[in-house]
Amino acid sequence: GNAILSGYGTTIFEAMSRLAATHNAINLGQGFPDDRGAEDVLQVAARALLEGNNQYPPMMGLPVLRQAVATHAARFYGLEVDWEREVMVTSGATEALAACLFGLIEPGDEVVLFQPLYDSYVPIIRRAGGIPRFVRLQPPGWTVDPADLAAAFSPRTKLVVLNNPLNPAAKVWSADELQLLADQVIAHDCLAVCDEVYEHLVFDGRRHLPLMALPGMRERTLRIGSAGKTFSLTGWKVGYVTAAPGLLQPVSKAHQYLTFTTPPNLQAAVAYGLAKDDAYFGLLAAALEAKRDRLSAGLASSGLPVLPSQGTYFVVADISGVGGRRATEDDAAFCRRLTTDAGVAAIPVSAFYEQDAPTHLIRFCFSKQDAILDSAVIRLKEFF
Amino acid sequence: GNAILSGYGTTIFEAMSRLAATHNAINLGQGFPDDRGAEDVLQVAARALLEGNNQYPPMMGLPVLRQAVATHAARFYGLEVDWEREVMVTSGATEALAACLFGLIEPGDEVVLFQPLYDSYVPIIRRAGGIPRFVRLQPPGWTVDPADLAAAFSPRTKLVVLNNPLNPAAKVWSADELQLLADQVIAHDCLAVCDEVYEHLVFDGRRHLPLMALPGMRERTLRIGSAGKTFSLTGWKVGYVTAAPGLLQPVSKAHQYLTFTTPPNLQAAVAYGLAKDDAYFGLLAAALEAKRDRLSAGLASSGLPVLPSQGTYFVVADISGVGGRRATEDDAAFCRRLTTDAGVAAIPVSAFYEQDAPTHLIRFCFSKQDAILDSAVIRLKEFF
Ligand SMILES: CSCCC(=O)C(=O)O
Ligand SMILES: CSCCC(=O)C(=O)O
Repeated sequence: GNAILSGYGTTIFEAMSRLAATHNAINLGQGFPDDRGAEDVLQVAARALLEGNNQYPPMMGLPVLRQAVATHAARFYGLEVDWEREVMVTSGATEALAACLFGLIEPGDEVVLFQPLYDSYVPIIRRAGGIPRFVRLQPPGWTVDPADLAAAFSPRTKLVVLNNPLNPAAKVWSADELQLLADQVIAHDCLAVCDEVYEHLVFDGRRHLPLMALPGMRERTLRIGSAGKTFSLTGWKVGYVTAAPGLLQPVSKAHQYLTFTTPPNLQAAVAYGLAKDDAYFGLLAAALEAKRDRLSAGLASSGLPVLPSQGTYFVVADISGVGGRRATEDDAAFCRRLTTDAGVAAIPVSAFYEQDAPTHLIRFCFSKQDAILDSAVIRLKEFF
Repeated sequence: GNAILSGYGTTIFEAMSRLAATHNAINLGQGFPDDRGAEDVLQVAARALLEGNNQYPPMMGLPVLRQAVATHAARFYGLEVDWEREVMVTSGATEALAACLFGLIEPGDEVVLFQPLYDSYVPIIRRAGGIPRFVRLQPPGWTVDPADLAAAFSPRTKLVVLNNPLNPAAKVWSADELQLLADQVIAHDCLAVCDEVYEHLVFDGRRHLPLMALPGMRERTLRIGSAGKTFSLTGWKVGYVTAAPGLLQPVSKAHQYLTFTTPPNLQAAVAYGLAKDDAYFGLLAAALEAKRDRLSAGLASSGLPVLPSQGTYFVVADISGVGGRRATEDDAAFCRRLTTDAGVAAIPVSAFYEQDAPTHLIRFCFSKQDAILDSAVIRLKEFF
């Protein structure tokens, strides 16, 4: 096999979900909700399946979905988007990211990344011939040191990958932080690929601000969204890229050879979903905020102090001072033992690092029924 | 954009479908059926959508589909397949191919290919760092010269890509031809990636023979299948790779970062479909055989002699002696004028070549309602 890809293991989310299933553990590892998803969106998908066209949709996506993505960007972020030239549908955000990276990177290009980071970024960047340059975010606030940021950019920088809101750190990037980043991108005349799949999952009255909305960034940013988290249907794998025509064009060249298209009935349903009223999006965030509070309180009361969670499905706990932890045990070993012995699966935060990973942080997913969250807390209390 | 990918235009299928739509032409270009697809398979998909799980399925695919793929291989080809270690589900055959190529190729590896070839092969091979080595098939029989074949292999050959049945040539590879290829693959200790998406669309009593079924090839072959053509649902994008565990493993590393998973309700429905009775598969081939005959006769009677079509959705016509053709017109220009002026879209066969393309052949898709095929023939007769 290819040396770069063969060097990576099975993705941690899959590995922990398998371990959880084997040991009948409550799976607070991989990030997905355990409800049925948006019911009306499901109904539209079923109708489109039975009454609509199931042959190849256009390579760029169904016009109705591309229009909905453009309208959504205007409605939530004031972005003006030409759906015909600036929106492309992909088979999930993972494919969107792969298409952006394979479509834009030239071997030898440098790519700036923030650690912790989602585990598909670096393998694809390296396979595309790119050279990652890491900037470390400092827990517990996951702050950026401006000097570190400046040092990561060079004349060879092609692009920066930003995940906002940030998995697993549950950080929502502030306007000041985004401005700092935009300044570097503009100064180095490079691009930004923004993975914003958690855009609607932000808490405590925060508003998600796309990097694309900052002055000078409209023409330099590729914005990735996805239906999975917005409609609680993570298995659908319907994503979209929004970018200026000159950026989207090379990305579409990669997309047409990676998957070509995405099931049309799911596209039609997501188009419907994106037009749902403000109450839907508000209630989604409110429901998850309540779950964040519920699990955070439970973890703290069972002896696992948590870091602030501003968005996403996740809350990070600090295991440095945890009683049940063995001296030799890092976060990965601790998560495995938590799964097998306590019956609760979590994800080691070290899995989101290429280098110098902290080993005292683990990630819990709270997008689960309240009863499940409560059971998990009871199990943890019994275990500690 | 990346120089390799930016060098390619929008895929010819998409380009001609757009042109056909603009000019209200009958679209016999892009290969897809114009019926609703297998009705019971649609029903199963709708039920799974409304009653089943819509969150992330396992990265390798739903067990029920992987089992069905293994059972199908045993039933039709006598292949013994361990579904747990030898089958992976992908988001269509296009993704399956990309995962195989990115997962197996090391920069500098040579890849043997037959021209004419499907248009995603070479861009992905080059983007993965591979070096294509072409073997030419000679029309009208699309035969392989054994000396040409031998000359394409070298100590640097990593793999050969075989499309069987072959789009656009409508060729079903014979046992002797496959043996010739197997001999080379074994002699050079390399691999074969077999795109067999048209496996059930073979005519005149032929049987599809997978290269994987030849002696010594079981451990060297990655076999790709797909639901699109088998159930007349080309928009679903559910594919599968079958290969020995040591080959599938590196391919799964690429897959997990390219798309990660495929919608679970569609997977469940394809599992159901693969278990359909022999009558289903027999009637599918018989219906298409009749359409092949209908369109072939119509084309011939309108002055377009056709080459033999042994399988796939396609028949190739020879435009060398056609009255209406202009002196300076190659196959691509002729197809565009056929679309705009005659109101019938076809695909120039030169689009399936990287080098030394013939310019006297065009491809028609016959997987359309009889009335549509007849209308197309009437339009062509009026035009010539
Ligand atoms: C592609 S499975 C991973 C889901 C996810 O985004 C996460 O758990 O972080
Ligand atoms: C991916 S669109 C192309 C469909 C097809 O296989 C063909 O027309 O040859």
